[in-house]
Amino acid sequence: MNESTLFSDPDNPDHGVGEYCHQLAHQLFPICRSLTGPGTRETITVLEGILPELKTHSVASGSTAFDWAVPDEWTIIAAYLEDEAGNRIVDFANNNLHVMGYSEPIDTWLELDALQKHLHSLPDQPDAIPYITSYYSRNWGFCITDDQRKTLNAGKYHAVIKSELKPGVLNYAELILPGETNREVFLSTYICHPSMANNELSGPVVATALALWLMTLGNRKFTYRIIFIPETIGSIVYLSKNLDHMKKHTHAGFNLTCIGDDRAYSYLPSRDGNTLSDRVAKHVLHHIDPEFARYNWLDRGSDERQYCSPGVDLPIATIMRSKYGIYPEYHTSKDDLTFVTPSGLQGGFSALRQAIEILENDFIPKITVLCEPQLGKRGLYPSISTKGSNNRVRTMMSLISYCDGENSLFDISELVGEPFHLLQEILGPLIAEGLIEISDSLN
Amino acid sequence: MNESTLFSDPDNPDHGVGEYCHQLAHQLFPICRSLTGPGTRETITVLEGILPELKTHSVASGSTAFDWAVPDEWTIIAAYLEDEAGNRIVDFANNNLHVMGYSEPIDTWLELDALQKHLHSLPDQPDAIPYITSYYSRNWGFCITDDQRKTLNAGKYHAVIKSELKPGVLNYAELILPGETNREVFLSTYICHPSMANNELSGPVVATALALWLMTLGNRKFTYRIIFIPETIGSIVYLSKNLDHMKKHTHAGFNLTCIGDDRAYSYLPSRDGNTLSDRVAKHVLHHIDPEFARYNWLDRGSDERQYCSPGVDLPIATIMRSKYGIYPEYHTSKDDLTFVTPSGLQGGFSALRQAIEILENDFIPKITVLCEPQLGKRGLYPSISTKGSNNRVRTMMSLISYCDGENSLFDISELVGEPFHLLQEILGPLIAEGLIEISDSLN
Amino acid sequence: MNESTLFSDPDNPDHGVGEYCHQLAHQLFPICRSLTGPGTRETITVLEGILPELKTHSVASGSTAFDWAVPDEWTIIAAYLEDEAGNRIVDFANNNLHVMGYSEPIDTWLELDALQKHLHSLPDQPDAIPYITSYYSRNWGFCITDDQRKTLNAGKYHAVIKSELKPGVLNYAELILPGETNREVFLSTYICHPSMANNELSGPVVATALALWLMTLGNRKFTYRIIFIPETIGSIVYLSKNLDHMKKHTHAGFNLTCIGDDRAYSYLPSRDGNTLSDRVAKHVLHHIDPEFARYNWLDRGSDERQYCSPGVDLPIATIMRSKYGIYPEYHTSKDDLTFVTPSGLQGGFSALRQAIEILENDFIPKITVLCEPQLGKRGLYPSISTKGSNNRVRTMMSLISYCDGENSLFDISELVGEPFHLLQEILGPLIAEGLIEISDSLN
Repeated sequence: MNESTLFSDPDNPDHGVGEYCHQLAHQLFPICRSLTGPGTRETITVLEGILPELKTHSVASGSTAFDWAVPDEWTIIAAYLEDEAGNRIVDFANNNLHVMGYSEPIDTWLELDALQKHLHSLPDQPDAIPYITSYYSRNWGFCITDDQRKTLNAGKYHAVIKSELKPGVLNYAELILPGETNREVFLSTYICHPSMANNELSGPVVATALALWLMTLGNRKFTYRIIFIPETIGSIVYLSKNLDHMKKHTHAGFNLTCIGDDRAYSYLPSRDGNTLSDRVAKHVLHHIDPEFARYNWLDRGSDERQYCSPGVDLPIATIMRSKYGIYPEYHTSKDDLTFVTPSGLQGGFSALRQAIEILENDFIPKITVLCEPQLGKRGLYPSISTKGSNNRVRTMMSLISYCDGENSLFDISELVGEPFHLLQEILGPLIAEGLIEISDSLN
Repeated sequence: MNESTLFSDPDNPDHGVGEYCHQLAHQLFPICRSLTGPGTRETITVLEGILPELKTHSVASGSTAFDWAVPDEWTIIAAYLEDEAGNRIVDFANNNLHVMGYSEPIDTWLELDALQKHLHSLPDQPDAIPYITSYYSRNWGFCITDDQRKTLNAGKYHAVIKSELKPGVLNYAELILPGETNREVFLSTYICHPSMANNELSGPVVATALALWLMTLGNRKFTYRIIFIPETIGSIVYLSKNLDHMKKHTHAGFNLTCIGDDRAYSYLPSRDGNTLSDRVAKHVLHHIDPEFARYNWLDRGSDERQYCSPGVDLPIATIMRSKYGIYPEYHTSKDDLTFVTPSGLQGGFSALRQAIEILENDFIPKITVLCEPQLGKRGLYPSISTKGSNNRVRTMMSLISYCDGENSLFDISELVGEPFHLLQEILGPLIAEGLIEISDSLN
Repeated sequence: MNESTLFSDPDNPDHGVGEYCHQLAHQLFPICRSLTGPGTRETITVLEGILPELKTHSVASGSTAFDWAVPDEWTIIAAYLEDEAGNRIVDFANNNLHVMGYSEPIDTWLELDALQKHLHSLPDQPDAIPYITSYYSRNWGFCITDDQRKTLNAGKYHAVIKSELKPGVLNYAELILPGETNREVFLSTYICHPSMANNELSGPVVATALALWLMTLGNRKFTYRIIFIPETIGSIVYLSKNLDHMKKHTHAGFNLTCIGDDRAYSYLPSRDGNTLSDRVAKHVLHHIDPEFARYNWLDRGSDERQYCSPGVDLPIATIMRSKYGIYPEYHTSKDDLTFVTPSGLQGGFSALRQAIEILENDFIPKITVLCEPQLGKRGLYPSISTKGSNNRVRTMMSLISYCDGENSLFDISELVGEPFHLLQEILGPLIAEGLIEISDSLN
């Protein structure tokens, strides 16, 4: 499975995407990403190999962005904890979650009692390593399973963290795919977590697959702005550099996070709650799984916090599989590539692709005749009447009844309660016959 | 029971209407109506005998109406199916449903196998004859019970249909009852089905009774436009000739169909869904039967499809008893005058009459004093306080509290949750006392 | 407990208010109030002792107010019923409910049969004395328990009512507490019922306590208009004298009635139903008791009938404990100071105080930075993370996310679903840090 074979089957456009995303996640999984530092750059380098148009940006530590300043760059070289006998208790080399993110360098012996306040574990999930960071106050620590923590005996321990915290840069990557208009669809995902699959890699790998798919489209109506950033500080920095342009041009957008497991589909709204992005997200999810989880703005927790903040007010909604903070594996070593699966990623990709297809293909249809058209004389009634064909005829007639030049095709799909792509397909022959015209192409 | 005795009892204005309607349906039942042809003319002739002002229109075959053309006129003279022994299997003379509507003429011998594709029956309703038509593609066929179909043995059959399909006219009838204003209430019903009672005759007979009732009213506020047309092509033709006038003048309106059985009350909205017609229909039905069936625009299936189509946009709602397509007798020989009853027709008539009375009697009342009026000094409080009188006083006070010159009496009946006619009755003495004035007569 | 010790504890502003209100109700309970007369004046005199700024108004009998005229003044001196043996059956001196309100003078002997139509009792509540009046048609009567009524033997009875019904005045009292603006908050309560606790005294005593509390506030944003009036005729008279001013200046307001028992919290809307008063009332009650009873405009029954009548249209909502007409003790001798309790009164006072605090303290906050502020660098994150502190941080972040310069703090408290006072408290440090500014102080 590689990029060149994706999206080649028009009857099954998503074929193999989940497998491809899962493989890419495997490649990126071991890299120790953080807000800044070599792990993030390495990740971008892998993505550049796939998306040559990807442009990397560097912003110096200390640079201000609204109320924030870019933090020092953190480089982690090695970290381990040993007992007096030289037994290595935990080692960053085995799992990059073992070291607390942004730990300052340390090389010290200390008693277990003193060590305990630098240890982090989860009593409720005793075999999971937690993911802990201390970005904005200097500290150091090790994360271990609670099972292992309980085996530690009194005595001295050697804590070694070889890290650097010094002025450097914050990196992010940006891909602009031009379309017919300068109206933009914005996709944002983050690259700042170490080895975690759903709450990190599912986002960038699905974003990469979406970029590859968009590049195969001959005629994109919209321009696509796809960014790979560290969460929070990255979106704030990005907005500080692009806000005016984005406020003016953004048509819709989605934050990509936690989009790779199989358990659920989830929706989190923009602050407004009723933007086109919100409506499209809910439509797509409803037709994939009517039981999809609906969260509200008070449940937010990712970069929509910035994109929808007062004065920014971008129309960004979130389509997820299992939402961050909800699934028990969240922010632990259990959020791995067994929890995130090819089918989970494929489902997430497909939901986003369908949402984008609605944006790309929506328009305002208008009927060209008064009263219902005579479809029989045009062969637009099915020749054999079956239950399925009857339903399709009813849907066609309902669709036609709403082509009043006010409703967009997407509006109509909501009125009729059928998937957008079905109405789009039904409308084709009616347009070809001249019964429906495009009143506004919404570009 | 005849026309002259109807509507003569002011305390029971609907007395005998159901019986009258049922008798008229009996008279019309045997006539073989279709989109065009002598059956439709014969039906109009019967109605003209009752409503001399009824005006018949003829539109030539081939005339265009929006996207449609008036079809050839169909005349059915005889039709039967015989076996080799000369046994008559089915005969149009026994039941006009036996011949598929718009069957072309045929006189041929054919084997059972070949005959089968021209036979129509209902395996799920084995003792019912289905009603089948083929208006716009040339074909022929016989409709029989499935029980009888199963008795047919292999062998040759003689299929004879003596019909004509040739240019002629499409007929419809129109009654205009002038009122004080040129604002119009529109009532439409159809005359294009052969022997079927609910899904055909209930409509024209209740429309006839409504016309007779309206003619007894001394002072109609609105002009009434009542039409008897073939469904679909008839409404399209009618709109093609009257659309500009109707768009300008139509205040409200109802499509009359399936309004004669006893099982249920039903409502189907206009496309807009919240026109005055819709609100009045729901109000009336709610106070007749709070459990009335509420359908939506996607469930539509009669001439509202034309009246509410984009660019036509008339405010037409539908009040029914059991909705077409829902009751099992629909479009079969079981939709007869045992299913449609005098009480069913009377209930349907009454619902429409009440709806029209709201339209006729609504106005915007306005209180002439500030604060609550002192009703005691005017004798407007009941002298003996009973639970009923207390409820009536509460309703009166609530009514008064909404007479702000913004709400119409009908709006208030919805706010207070009581029937319009009760509020109308309560308001009388308040107007007589000068406490309420008519702010706008809504004509 | 006296006025001077109330509201002195900033950590428990309501301390002792319920006890104080209950004592004041005890003092006022024996007075025989009616629409007019010495009982009402005596009540006002007691209140003047507490609120020296209270201004008494007198309106002459026969004066007109909109559709009404001020009735004659009623003075009741004594009333009793004796049997032939001189046994006193009932005596006004024992319970002022025994005489029907506005009874005309009588001194007559009559047989039990003739007496019965002048007796009022409650078969369903046989040990309760009902409260009955006949304000606007001349009559006389005695109210007794049904238990006692059943003991009356045939024979003659001596009915004596020493009362006067003659031109005099109607009295009411008015307290204006000026604020920074001439926008007004209106509080209305009534003083026209004899010995009844919830449906009378709870209103004036809580209004008195609210006035005392408002007087302790150094900086009132709004001017407060607090009136003590006879119900219905009093509010009509008051409106007839103040309507133009009140329509122009009233920001919000509440009618105070039935606010002293422990059983429930209740809300009755203004006619509009969505005024600021309504929204604040529902917010406060929701956070006191999510199960509070919600009535609608059709359930109204006190002076909101006048304040919200067409053309008056003041934004007056009602916060109650158990609503009039709902609790069985209503309008009987059982509505006493065991039913109304210190804790019930304190709860009622507290609800009104909280509602007023929202009005006083609401404003439109606006964030001064784009994107989320960096709170860590300002020490605005809790140093120790507990479940409680996490919830508070989430609430703080949600609050900040809505500070867009459009929503008021009260709007935000509804969006976030948390009590206004919690958001007010959380916002303090953010304003101190300059992260939030006051966009509009809503005065």
